[in-house]
Amino acid sequence: MNLREKYGQWGIILGATEGVGKAFCEKIAQGGMNVVMVGRREEKLQELGKELKDKYGVDYKVVRADFSQDGAAETVFAATEGLDMGFMSYVACLHSFGKIQDTPWEKHQAMINVNVITFMKCFYHYMKIFTAQDRGAVINVSSMTGIASSPWNGQYGAGKAYILKMTEAVACECEKTNVDVMCITLGTTLTPSLLSNLPGGPAGEAVMKNAQTPEQVADEAFERLGKDLSVIAGDHNKATVHDWKANHTEDEYIRYMGSFYQN
Amino acid sequence: MNLREKYGQWGIILGATEGVGKAFCEKIAQGGMNVVMVGRREEKLQELGKELKDKYGVDYKVVRADFSQDGAAETVFAATEGLDMGFMSYVACLHSFGKIQDTPWEKHQAMINVNVITFMKCFYHYMKIFTAQDRGAVINVSSMTGIASSPWNGQYGAGKAYILKMTEAVACECEKTNVDVMCITLGTTLTPSLLSNLPGGPAGEAVMKNAQTPEQVADEAFERLGKDLSVIAGDHNKATVHDWKANHTEDEYIRYMGSFYQN
Repeated sequence: MNLREKYGQWGIILGATEGVGKAFCEKIAQGGMNVVMVGRREEKLQELGKELKDKYGVDYKVVRADFSQDGAAETVFAATEGLDMGFMSYVACLHSFGKIQDTPWEKHQAMINVNVITFMKCFYHYMKIFTAQDRGAVINVSSMTGIASSPWNGQYGAGKAYILKMTEAVACECEKTNVDVMCITLGTTLTPSLLSNLPGGPAGEAVMKNAQTPEQVADEAFERLGKDLSVIAGDHNKATVHDWKANHTEDEYIRYMGSFYQN
Repeated sequence: MNLREKYGQWGIILGATEGVGKAFCEKIAQGGMNVVMVGRREEKLQELGKELKDKYGVDYKVVRADFSQDGAAETVFAATEGLDMGFMSYVACLHSFGKIQDTPWEKHQAMINVNVITFMKCFYHYMKIFTAQDRGAVINVSSMTGIASSPWNGQYGAGKAYILKMTEAVACECEKTNVDVMCITLGTTLTPSLLSNLPGGPAGEAVMKNAQTPEQVADEAFERLGKDLSVIAGDHNKATVHDWKANHTEDEYIRYMGSFYQN
């Protein structure tokens, strides 16, 4: 699809360095859009930008920002001022394992900043632009922990639930306009972040068996954009969520999620 | 049940002035606990406190705080310092109707403060106390909009999803201890807040037909505390959520929720 013609010249990926964010960068470059890549590791983002420029002939811009810090969103907005923006995706997330009360408050604050406040500021900012020009698209990324909750990883699940329900609401609000909004909810995805946090034993093996690649996720996300409001990535994850919702109690689902990281 | 013997001398209700918060105050006073009542309307809370003292012979304390303001949580903590705390419930919430990008940022910030930040600070603070003494209970209040999302009321649904998934995670984490944590998810409840925001026409009528009273909600919440992690209030709401999850797509559920407040 020619995304540039449909949505505009520039797209921004918030959390672009690796995994799904990187796959989304490739997807919009392939669709002809210039890419604003935001993350903490400038060097890796510069490399990715050069790669996309060589491969697809698109322009790029790297913005260094730490979404857990106050002012991160404002840094991003300043960097895209004056650009013809037509796409945004918030992929960034932050987690910390352990019981809620054993996690220092500073870590909670950092996670709330990444998963709620900076997310909301960015979504709000670009939705204002997209709805004013009646042109643009948003794909935000949630997680099955946001559907089920995530004991011993609670702040992550709660933040992902916030992103999911916020994006679903906005997707519905603008359904009959030329702004396409969608949330994609991921199960296990083979990202560097997953691989470094995989639970051990049978739980870890079960998780890996049905893992998707970031490219599979990106393909489905862009294929469904403009058609669906909320998508669970992959047939296996869709079936799992449906089975839990139809045939189990909420408490069973919570305890199952808890079994992954219980210590 | 003698809540005082089981959980401690004092309980705190955050958002105690009316509706479900008020019914929870009555419930813990009935269970022998002294009540810390927090809200914006000091006079109404004083009245309620006197009523509870006369009726159940318990002590009470009124704390004026606006959960949308920075520092609200700290005001609350200072007021309960040194008390033998054994119960907390976060009932407060804040909403604003309209498309996300048409709502001023200050309103979003106020809603994030009430529904995410002040909630999380309070939950964290009292969980630290309860787990340290291995005694206490929490009932947090969510909404079916947190399960389904709430178009044209998006910040509310997203915040309620955050509260729901955070509380579920913590409920699971402390399940095998003497700290009981539960989330109760409300459908339509006959509170002053509902009655002033009822959608018009057939949607409003449908909503009212199966509405519960705050007392019904409170009865079920305290009856299930220590047994369940996550409860949807009332048989009708339980059946509705199960039907949507088992027999409809997520997109259908979102659009249905959107039909209530679409303008």
